[in-house]
Amino acid sequence: MSKLYTEMTKEELLAEKKSLKKRYDAFKARGLKLDMSRGKPGADQLDLSTGIYDVKYYIADGLDVRNYGMLDGIPSCKQLFADLMGVDSKNVVIGPNASLTLMYDYIGQCYTHGAGDKPWCKLDEVKFICPVPGYDRHFTICEYFGIKMINVPMNLDGPDMDAIEELVKDESVKGMFCVPKYSNPQGITFSDEIVEKIAALKPAAKDFRIIWDNAYCIHDLVDDGDELLNIFDILPKYGNEDMVVEVCSTSKITFPGAGVSAIIASDNNIAQIKTRLNAQTISYDKMNQHRHVQFFGNADGVREHMKKHAKILKPKFDMVLKHLNDELGDKGIASWFNPKGGYFISLDVMDGCAKRTGELCKAAGVTLTTVGATYPYGIDPKDSNIRIAPSFPPVEELDIAAELLCICVRLACVEKLLEK
Amino acid sequence: MSKLYTEMTKEELLAEKKSLKKRYDAFKARGLKLDMSRGKPGADQLDLSTGIYDVKYYIADGLDVRNYGMLDGIPSCKQLFADLMGVDSKNVVIGPNASLTLMYDYIGQCYTHGAGDKPWCKLDEVKFICPVPGYDRHFTICEYFGIKMINVPMNLDGPDMDAIEELVKDESVKGMFCVPKYSNPQGITFSDEIVEKIAALKPAAKDFRIIWDNAYCIHDLVDDGDELLNIFDILPKYGNEDMVVEVCSTSKITFPGAGVSAIIASDNNIAQIKTRLNAQTISYDKMNQHRHVQFFGNADGVREHMKKHAKILKPKFDMVLKHLNDELGDKGIASWFNPKGGYFISLDVMDGCAKRTGELCKAAGVTLTTVGATYPYGIDPKDSNIRIAPSFPPVEELDIAAELLCICVRLACVEKLLEK
Repeated sequence: MSKLYTEMTKEELLAEKKSLKKRYDAFKARGLKLDMSRGKPGADQLDLSTGIYDVKYYIADGLDVRNYGMLDGIPSCKQLFADLMGVDSKNVVIGPNASLTLMYDYIGQCYTHGAGDKPWCKLDEVKFICPVPGYDRHFTICEYFGIKMINVPMNLDGPDMDAIEELVKDESVKGMFCVPKYSNPQGITFSDEIVEKIAALKPAAKDFRIIWDNAYCIHDLVDDGDELLNIFDILPKYGNEDMVVEVCSTSKITFPGAGVSAIIASDNNIAQIKTRLNAQTISYDKMNQHRHVQFFGNADGVREHMKKHAKILKPKFDMVLKHLNDELGDKGIASWFNPKGGYFISLDVMDGCAKRTGELCKAAGVTLTTVGATYPYGIDPKDSNIRIAPSFPPVEELDIAAELLCICVRLACVEKLLEK
Repeated sequence: MSKLYTEMTKEELLAEKKSLKKRYDAFKARGLKLDMSRGKPGADQLDLSTGIYDVKYYIADGLDVRNYGMLDGIPSCKQLFADLMGVDSKNVVIGPNASLTLMYDYIGQCYTHGAGDKPWCKLDEVKFICPVPGYDRHFTICEYFGIKMINVPMNLDGPDMDAIEELVKDESVKGMFCVPKYSNPQGITFSDEIVEKIAALKPAAKDFRIIWDNAYCIHDLVDDGDELLNIFDILPKYGNEDMVVEVCSTSKITFPGAGVSAIIASDNNIAQIKTRLNAQTISYDKMNQHRHVQFFGNADGVREHMKKHAKILKPKFDMVLKHLNDELGDKGIASWFNPKGGYFISLDVMDGCAKRTGELCKAAGVTLTTVGATYPYGIDPKDSNIRIAPSFPPVEELDIAAELLCICVRLACVEKLLEK
């Protein structure tokens, strides 16, 4: 098959549909139960870190980390994150088991106490910029706090900066969530030019805040992974030190749910965060912080560890990409980005065909991320984006699931074209 | 010495002062550095739980707890807390490493989203009832959210219910923090009558919430510890199921900062908490939850473990009480409560003498909890309450620190009486 679907006659489409339906039914008959819905590490990835619990002594930096104290984290763990992220340890606060909570709590703090200006709960309207497609959990936080989300398209080098520069002229636009490296779901890393433009923004709102969710900061799949500019090196040039709050975690380095997170911010922002933390906790889990430091030794130790993850993950991504190429490469009905890292492959199909693809997959036993979830309010205006999470299933299962997914995409598109 | 200080002549007081000053100076010359400021477990108590990390397999309830999921905790851990607290596991949500965070987050939730009525941030004024003396961290949460605190005195059987019944007639009075068992700092357990009266309250505010901080639920020092009525058994009688939100944790069972916390509430409240949690986290640390379940086996296992803590703590409390009895027992200048559990001894000295006692102690190398901290805004109106935390120092150190404390109390009181 090398003919574009869009150039097929009705008869050709009907024939194509018939042949696809036959393949689809054969898959369906197998009673599959496969899951490509969430960016969960596989069990073999989790096994890489179980040695972390061999740590037996809990004296760190001269202190018994089993006891109360050290609100912002143990010094050695702050230093580890400072080294990884290229910042000063005074600008690092170690958080709980997930950076999601750090983000939620930070937005909560802005909502109840503001970010240097009025508390956001006292304002009539708060809006956030959302590069799309994006991460559903960011949207959920906005939705919970009643923050109105405004879509901005992602380009191949990052978000559409013309649109953003226009939007920030509105004082009620108070911030933006983004994943600057190996973005969720596309795997796009913001180019140096985009990072510079973001750092140079002049928002009308003095308390504009960018949540720089660097979830995949060292999560390369290949040796020549993407490089992301350190935005904290650039912000001072524009007097914008307080504009960006960065988070990261070991959720996909050690354990999802039992890792360590960190928040990185300016002196001013760190001071406000610590004021809140002083009411919210006595300290996060310092034993876990200490274990992480002991297990990795230093930042290079973490980077070495990530190569083991890549070795497991790369074949999974390759398997999905092979099927996308084989089945969808020459039909003019789908496009995707081939990421050098991160946890997802983002597949864009013909407008109006994503939901139907998800339904067909589900009926044949393959669960995808809920179609639409990559957009605010769960509404993909074009109904075209599908997030594929290849990390959890074994390669053999991905082989089946990805082929089936491609068949479903083709079927959905043929159905759509036949409607016309 | 058996004469009351208040009955001494000026000459007798001067002689007493001279003799006390001599003892005080001798202590001061020793260059002590002792800490009775915080309710920290001793290192030997922490050693009781290090075996928890011997757990090697992380499959619980058929699921790999190292991975994402299970927002409200693993079922076996929910059941463990349900058994300990005498509730249904559906009314338990497992939280992060500290119940303090659960309380902060719950008040934050009421502030941003309300508790079934208007969000508290939309109201002109929110007031909370604070039984005093109380726990400084509760006051800090209120202060952070701008909640106005109203003192209500603690009696020997719990808070003054006449005062509370009067206060709740004010619709802007939205809640109360309390520690119903082995209260911080007095170690008082609310009597059955008081618990019943609390459960029967008819607050004007429909969204009145009592934070039932059961921090010392199983923290007995003696075999015949106090029994606290389970308020959740009584609330339905008065249609008040939603009025109480209970928290507890293993901070003083396993590790402060690396334990597991739980929040217990009505179906309605749990639903609201889960809605928030769904935006705030994917799950708390389930590996730690699983370790706790494996280490203890069941609720009886936890109770047995607490006997080991009591064995370490009881001699420490006894040492402090011995000195209080010996030095302050017959002077008419101090009173204290002899608790059957918890982490503190609350010492009330002659009005206007607590701060001075703290100063004298500090100058001689003994740190007490900041005097005043047991009251909202750090203001003890009578300047009389001192919180003693005997858990952290070894018995030998307590022997010295408690004697010195008593000397300081006596000196401060003599000074005060001489002013008249």
